[in-house]
Amino acid sequence: MPSAPAVESFAEFRQRRVERIEKVLDELLPPADILPGRLHEAMRYSTLGGGKRVRPLLVYAGGQCLGLADELLDRAAAALEMIHAYSLVHDDLPAMDNDDMRRGRPTCHKAFDEATAILVGDALLTHAFQVLAEPVPGLAPAQQLAMALDLARAAGSRGMVGGQAIDLAAVGHELAQPALEQMHLQKTGMLIRCALQLPLQAAAIAPDASVASALLRYADRIGLAFQVQDDILDEIGDIRETGKARQGADRSRQKPSFVSLLGLTEAQRYAQRLLEDALDALSPWGAEGDHLRALARLIVERNR
Amino acid sequence: MPSAPAVESFAEFRQRRVERIEKVLDELLPPADILPGRLHEAMRYSTLGGGKRVRPLLVYAGGQCLGLADELLDRAAAALEMIHAYSLVHDDLPAMDNDDMRRGRPTCHKAFDEATAILVGDALLTHAFQVLAEPVPGLAPAQQLAMALDLARAAGSRGMVGGQAIDLAAVGHELAQPALEQMHLQKTGMLIRCALQLPLQAAAIAPDASVASALLRYADRIGLAFQVQDDILDEIGDIRETGKARQGADRSRQKPSFVSLLGLTEAQRYAQRLLEDALDALSPWGAEGDHLRALARLIVERNR
Repeated sequence: MPSAPAVESFAEFRQRRVERIEKVLDELLPPADILPGRLHEAMRYSTLGGGKRVRPLLVYAGGQCLGLADELLDRAAAALEMIHAYSLVHDDLPAMDNDDMRRGRPTCHKAFDEATAILVGDALLTHAFQVLAEPVPGLAPAQQLAMALDLARAAGSRGMVGGQAIDLAAVGHELAQPALEQMHLQKTGMLIRCALQLPLQAAAIAPDASVASALLRYADRIGLAFQVQDDILDEIGDIRETGKARQGADRSRQKPSFVSLLGLTEAQRYAQRLLEDALDALSPWGAEGDHLRALARLIVERNR
Repeated sequence: MPSAPAVESFAEFRQRRVERIEKVLDELLPPADILPGRLHEAMRYSTLGGGKRVRPLLVYAGGQCLGLADELLDRAAAALEMIHAYSLVHDDLPAMDNDDMRRGRPTCHKAFDEATAILVGDALLTHAFQVLAEPVPGLAPAQQLAMALDLARAAGSRGMVGGQAIDLAAVGHELAQPALEQMHLQKTGMLIRCALQLPLQAAAIAPDASVASALLRYADRIGLAFQVQDDILDEIGDIRETGKARQGADRSRQKPSFVSLLGLTEAQRYAQRLLEDALDALSPWGAEGDHLRALARLIVERNR
């Protein structure tokens, strides 16, 4: 049954869809009582442990702009969140960012061990594609295959993983703004873009090119805004709010950031400008675009 | 154009298909001159650096039993080899098996660095699904999606990654034969089984259930035989032949093995019995099954 965005406030939308994706993830992840139990327990620990669920919310809100029922989008939202969760587990490893805490809890390799954390990431990444490849009522195989392709491109060496590689190589270097934006486009932007690509693939009739390009323009602006805001929060955020172990952690590791490049005030102005661009891209939509609008504001105005 | 197994000796088949898969992998992997260059270079180092290409050979030879052209199987063979290559890169990491050498060359994290090796594995795993999801002339989206599903199940937490987790947990413990076989079924067997599942999915008309079950029985026997032979080689193999840094490495780390469980002579007899079972499963085929037969013998009679 199609959702009715007009009668649902953003607070209701957010609470219901976060609950929904938690339930979907819980059902799609292997239970901890199936062998190997410790691996499955660690996969669940790393995926079900909270988080803002920004990407699934974008999937569902994008679906509302296209008149799609939540049921068609559950696996897309879950697959995207599994990719995000795996990337955090691997990024936190000692050989990468070496973080002990995440969302106020020990990171996977601290709560379990390093070998398990490597395997958890591998298993979540693989499971994301399994979830997209299993038959879904209402979606044609060609649609599901197109979703898998979008996800693979967004997550691979020319997407998220490549962005992480560029980021690691950039530690200790100054990056100019275009290089910094390319790095973030790959590292976080392409997965956020994918959150809008997946509902576009789920539409029974392919949306007009103008509809697709408007939603993807929205996605690209908030993807970048997300990262600018991350850099701002890393500079000024309260440790209790961000759940990160160190304030100014990026600066102390000499990671290139929008704040170090533009200064704090200019970075804040830039985030606002990106927000306005994102909202502008949604001008073809009335009330059915309201939740995407609210998500854009949430991303830029969040404090953690 | 369909291949003609009757006129091609196994030596010719093997040489041509190894060359073929090297070329296919070279074309499907991102070039090292595309950013991030070091990541792409390391992906190529880890995938194109030799190896026996057993899984791709099984894909092509299985295809011959089904009358399939090599062109229909190239991406399946490449995806499977990318999964195999990624698993070696991650297994070699210090937190896992901590191996410095592989195929007589430094392992990925030694030739590059640990963070790069983690990302190389992630990128190869993701790329395997990208390669299966890109449009292929002659295959329907439903067939490609079924291939992606088979691969995800074979490679995930209830397949290869789970087998690796069970293996790590078993170090220092004695395993009974059923537990040891379950571990190996997941760790290596399911990917070898997948090498026969993929050509079954590529057939334009779904093969008879008896054809499918015969090929999968063959796959299961050689998958297990492969591991028994690995354990035998670890015990008796010459270091120069296996390319491994230490002879008896599994024993010295108290890894459970068929040799420690059954003794060397019994393990060798067991490998022979599995070989005979595998050949028996191929009895429905004449000359078009000869390359699968030769591959089964190669696996059991190899010395590295």
